[in-house]
Amino acid sequence: MGSTFGHLFRISTFGESHGGGVGVVIDGCPPLIEISAEEIQVELDRRRPGQSKITTPRKEADQCEILSGVFEGKTLGTPIAMLVRNKDQRSQDYDEMSVKYRPSHADATYDAKYGIRNWQGGGRSSARETIGRVAAGAIAKKILKEAANVEIIAYVKRIKDIEAMIDPSAVTMDQVESNIVRCPDAECSDRMIDLIEQVRNQGDSIGGVVECVARRVPVGLGDPVFDKVEADLAKAVMSLPATKGFEIGSGFAGTLLTGSEHNDEFYSDSGTIRTMTNRSGGVQGGISNGEDIVIRIAFKPTATIRKEQRTVTNDGEEVTLAAKGRHDPCVLPRAVPMVEAMVALVLCDHFLRQRGQCGLS
Amino acid sequence: MGSTFGHLFRISTFGESHGGGVGVVIDGCPPLIEISAEEIQVELDRRRPGQSKITTPRKEADQCEILSGVFEGKTLGTPIAMLVRNKDQRSQDYDEMSVKYRPSHADATYDAKYGIRNWQGGGRSSARETIGRVAAGAIAKKILKEAANVEIIAYVKRIKDIEAMIDPSAVTMDQVESNIVRCPDAECSDRMIDLIEQVRNQGDSIGGVVECVARRVPVGLGDPVFDKVEADLAKAVMSLPATKGFEIGSGFAGTLLTGSEHNDEFYSDSGTIRTMTNRSGGVQGGISNGEDIVIRIAFKPTATIRKEQRTVTNDGEEVTLAAKGRHDPCVLPRAVPMVEAMVALVLCDHFLRQRGQCGLS
Amino acid sequence: MGSTFGHLFRISTFGESHGGGVGVVIDGCPPLIEISAEEIQVELDRRRPGQSKITTPRKEADQCEILSGVFEGKTLGTPIAMLVRNKDQRSQDYDEMSVKYRPSHADATYDAKYGIRNWQGGGRSSARETIGRVAAGAIAKKILKEAANVEIIAYVKRIKDIEAMIDPSAVTMDQVESNIVRCPDAECSDRMIDLIEQVRNQGDSIGGVVECVARRVPVGLGDPVFDKVEADLAKAVMSLPATKGFEIGSGFAGTLLTGSEHNDEFYSDSGTIRTMTNRSGGVQGGISNGEDIVIRIAFKPTATIRKEQRTVTNDGEEVTLAAKGRHDPCVLPRAVPMVEAMVALVLCDHFLRQRGQCGLS
Amino acid sequence: MGSTFGHLFRISTFGESHGGGVGVVIDGCPPLIEISAEEIQVELDRRRPGQSKITTPRKEADQCEILSGVFEGKTLGTPIAMLVRNKDQRSQDYDEMSVKYRPSHADATYDAKYGIRNWQGGGRSSARETIGRVAAGAIAKKILKEAANVEIIAYVKRIKDIEAMIDPSAVTMDQVESNIVRCPDAECSDRMIDLIEQVRNQGDSIGGVVECVARRVPVGLGDPVFDKVEADLAKAVMSLPATKGFEIGSGFAGTLLTGSEHNDEFYSDSGTIRTMTNRSGGVQGGISNGEDIVIRIAFKPTATIRKEQRTVTNDGEEVTLAAKGRHDPCVLPRAVPMVEAMVALVLCDHFLRQRGQCGLS
Repeated sequence: MGSTFGHLFRISTFGESHGGGVGVVIDGCPPLIEISAEEIQVELDRRRPGQSKITTPRKEADQCEILSGVFEGKTLGTPIAMLVRNKDQRSQDYDEMSVKYRPSHADATYDAKYGIRNWQGGGRSSARETIGRVAAGAIAKKILKEAANVEIIAYVKRIKDIEAMIDPSAVTMDQVESNIVRCPDAECSDRMIDLIEQVRNQGDSIGGVVECVARRVPVGLGDPVFDKVEADLAKAVMSLPATKGFEIGSGFAGTLLTGSEHNDEFYSDSGTIRTMTNRSGGVQGGISNGEDIVIRIAFKPTATIRKEQRTVTNDGEEVTLAAKGRHDPCVLPRAVPMVEAMVALVLCDHFLRQRGQCGLS
Repeated sequence: MGSTFGHLFRISTFGESHGGGVGVVIDGCPPLIEISAEEIQVELDRRRPGQSKITTPRKEADQCEILSGVFEGKTLGTPIAMLVRNKDQRSQDYDEMSVKYRPSHADATYDAKYGIRNWQGGGRSSARETIGRVAAGAIAKKILKEAANVEIIAYVKRIKDIEAMIDPSAVTMDQVESNIVRCPDAECSDRMIDLIEQVRNQGDSIGGVVECVARRVPVGLGDPVFDKVEADLAKAVMSLPATKGFEIGSGFAGTLLTGSEHNDEFYSDSGTIRTMTNRSGGVQGGISNGEDIVIRIAFKPTATIRKEQRTVTNDGEEVTLAAKGRHDPCVLPRAVPMVEAMVALVLCDHFLRQRGQCGLS
Repeated sequence: MGSTFGHLFRISTFGESHGGGVGVVIDGCPPLIEISAEEIQVELDRRRPGQSKITTPRKEADQCEILSGVFEGKTLGTPIAMLVRNKDQRSQDYDEMSVKYRPSHADATYDAKYGIRNWQGGGRSSARETIGRVAAGAIAKKILKEAANVEIIAYVKRIKDIEAMIDPSAVTMDQVESNIVRCPDAECSDRMIDLIEQVRNQGDSIGGVVECVARRVPVGLGDPVFDKVEADLAKAVMSLPATKGFEIGSGFAGTLLTGSEHNDEFYSDSGTIRTMTNRSGGVQGGISNGEDIVIRIAFKPTATIRKEQRTVTNDGEEVTLAAKGRHDPCVLPRAVPMVEAMVALVLCDHFLRQRGQCGLS
Repeated sequence: MGSTFGHLFRISTFGESHGGGVGVVIDGCPPLIEISAEEIQVELDRRRPGQSKITTPRKEADQCEILSGVFEGKTLGTPIAMLVRNKDQRSQDYDEMSVKYRPSHADATYDAKYGIRNWQGGGRSSARETIGRVAAGAIAKKILKEAANVEIIAYVKRIKDIEAMIDPSAVTMDQVESNIVRCPDAECSDRMIDLIEQVRNQGDSIGGVVECVARRVPVGLGDPVFDKVEADLAKAVMSLPATKGFEIGSGFAGTLLTGSEHNDEFYSDSGTIRTMTNRSGGVQGGISNGEDIVIRIAFKPTATIRKEQRTVTNDGEEVTLAAKGRHDPCVLPRAVPMVEAMVALVLCDHFLRQRGQCGLS
């Protein structure tokens, strides 16, 4: 049951990296939303492999087919199923990995939990699974945009120790998409790209931090006490592969301030209650306050590397492994649309919940 | 519906800081677990106000009554309801706050979302709500302990910029409980206590980082792709009041390493597959691998402070507020049992889920 | 987890017949609904034992306390917890039943499932558990009434073979409450009362059929394909104790007609689409069509009787049992408010879901 | 969100009668279950149109493709997605129905709820949606069979007023499949077939009753108080198209007995506690007791008929409609595998839940 996410806008993803395909069913999408396969394809293309010289050179078209729930260009209110076929060519690169566990990868734990795994690639733990999320996220984004003009933009904030200075309240999607590392800081982005290429040439990998801003989120989203916006965002992004940390607003750095330094004082902006600063990151008491929601996510260096490492086989024999195949030296450029999708899924679900529960009297 | 948490071990908390009381209903607790009100009281006493000179001086006994689900000292398998009465004396301290919104508190967003709030205290956003979590967590802990000898220990890792050096694999509950700040590093704990007292005297507040370790967690817990252990832990602790960040294993710092530095190499420990390092924090691919689960949570400085701040009233009038009343200058010592409870709730739920779903063939 | 019901308007009931008390937590109740303990008490008094000469003579006041979620007479949007204390006097009547299983009762299956049961009464399987449902149902009714003027009326349609002729579209609550058997057919009700008394004097019990109508239900409630209105109603009422069957509209009798006889032809009532007949029972394709929703529920004769029956002990020894204690000879008069409550809970949940999911574009 | 069913064994169906296809995602299927597309196809063939002279003559191959979750013939523990393509030929037969609402069909309510519907056939309300249920049910059946030797057999009990005498404890699948109406009573089945053909020739339709027995269900399944076995079975089958009623055990007829006549007395069968009669239908207090679970479901006469009826258009204009196209004159023969599937889904979910929640101590 772990492949289902959301309450009113509920998605179920399916699929392994090898086999028939991957996809998603959205149960609870409102009717009459205009949606086309092309819009969804735009997002899928942002996350697909082979899109640039710093991603894996694997070429996967990742063509999305809408199987149900859309009629004459509009959602029916019934489940939307979307499917992306796998190219069913089994890679020889995985033969060794059928018995040798990749360090810090999911091979060993899947075997331990299920007693079986599709070793022809990452199986269910492959980043390919996120195709369904990104496809569903495209629709969630559309709903939020149409209904409340919400805008969700993620970008690379840091690669290893190269950190960009970016103003979340001003960054644009064009800036993000202006370079292949998706860092809207021209100076930094070049250095990041260089570093990624250099690390790849060494057969190694690196990680970093993605930041995401959601602007014009309606006041009142979030459902205390467990389904607070920040709690659901944390779960959403921490369910992405390779994540190790989550922050909202001031995050860990905020713990170095005193309350009087940290608190966001209120003022009245022509009758609208606003805050002078935004250390809260757009959420107070688990409920959106209308300011920008700003989160950051730590992505570890990719686990699968060409450098030789010590490991064991599924029989417990100690061996070494130097992974073959074409793997991303750094997941962050492709993680950007995944983060946006997860944020959109959380906010869309809470947007519908808020419509359902409040405003009756 | 936001006050329900968990799937097989499902809790619903209820209650505001003022009114009849606070509590929890646990739906799905296995039968035949020995449990007593005394065991639960131990945990509640660890989180109650007035327990030491560095917490709020409010005296609340927080006496727990088990209303149902336990018979002759054992769980029945039916819902366990637990109630802690509020001392129903309305504090004059809150009169001013009935109209003035506390900066970085939930007053304004609750009003915006619901159009009403119990302004006689923090209402539902009060830390008092966590009583139900801690009570339920005590039972979850017991189950994990009895069934798999799991041990969950949280402690204060950092207060503002005073950071303790603690070995998660060796720390003991006695060490944690040996001082009132719950930092198992004798040298640091004294400095932390001094700092908290000093900040309180200034009418201000501070935050910090709580670390939590879960030892001997069975291999195989976690339900990819959305209900990964780290995702559910992130949601669980980010739903606690005043949290701003979450990390597992190497966390944000891990993003500064390369893959070859970061990966946890495998070895065979008399047939058991183990990792030489634990940057994964006990979870790989969303599934527990048997190593210690280690997480860290950032708690911001308490929002309610005596220092004067600019704010607005519920009519949007700009005013100033210097909060009266007796508030914690630092939530961390009392947050320790809350974090343990949330971790126990997540692991217990996954423990039952794993029993249900796997091991059939 | 089986004690939780509903999605947006979600209730968790708790409590056994003996022990601290029984009650309910409502998670998801909209804010700003005016509600008083008195309104809830009215419904609880309709279901309480000892209310008339044909119910069990046990006297239970069943006084309801609202513990949370209501402030100054209005709902806060936070969980509403309600508690009714048990009179904690253990009945000697149950001593024998601690070892002897009552035929067709839950004693044996609870022991088999959980390995333990509270044998001091019916425990969790006692009809006393429905107190929480009726209390929550009172609020659901209020919401439906305020928001859409929905009216839900249940009544006794048949006791054993005495069947009343009642027009669901015209029956009033006053008629239902005009006699102690809750059958709005004056002639039948007297005969029903006589029969119940006669059966009780024989140490036996009887069952019958409750019918329930919901009027002015908004068009569009229900969520195909699994959460159809009739499916959720069926589950709701079949979860009440002693139920053996459910029908909507034409029910089982409708299977004797041909399609041309059975179909509800449409006509236009000043622009509103309506049906000339209502064999559909107010639901088509799982979605309410604005006509009266009409359902019927079969209640078996009460299992606990004074007549001697063959049974076994928990050790499997064959014995006989003549139940002591004061049991209802017929559950139907008290089942009427339970049925109304369950119907209200289903419709209220779907009403909120419909608000959340539809009407965006 | 209404297209999701189950908790631990959770399915999401998708698809309309026209468009890309229909199917299902199963989230929570245990790993290592042997499963083949052929096994699933057997069940799909039992429910497909055109299988005999008394079903609709539409020819649909309904070929099932397993997209994910199965590897080398065994389940992976990850989501199983199954897809059946629609033959994408739009029928001219539906042109008239794009504006005229079929009486007692879902056309009008779908339009009212969603503001849009796929009028090229029944859309989401088409019985074609049940393909996903039957495919998932095939796997649920397999699990129950392998793990506990559970056997689930449904059959036609009554067509209009032709009622068969069948012993649920002895009926075999071979008997059911021995004739095209799926009534394991040779004498009745011929008369039923004749009646269906005769009614079809009149352009009319008929309904009836399906009975279903589940044998060797483990003791202890069911989760009081809301998720009682009979409650979940009721919801499951009442979510099938055209259902109007549900009974378990003695059902409505049981209400004519007294308690002493109705109760199932216990006896000891070589140490196993059993009941002499089975009016309870295999469930007591919402929990399976090891006796046969026996339920009956009322199916109304098919709504779409060739006979002319009065109706309205989507503009409210009063018109007449004589439906074109090839529709089932009686849904029952094809409903038999649907009922089995729903029963299997409920029992499999409870089987896994019971494994998860009980038996710890």
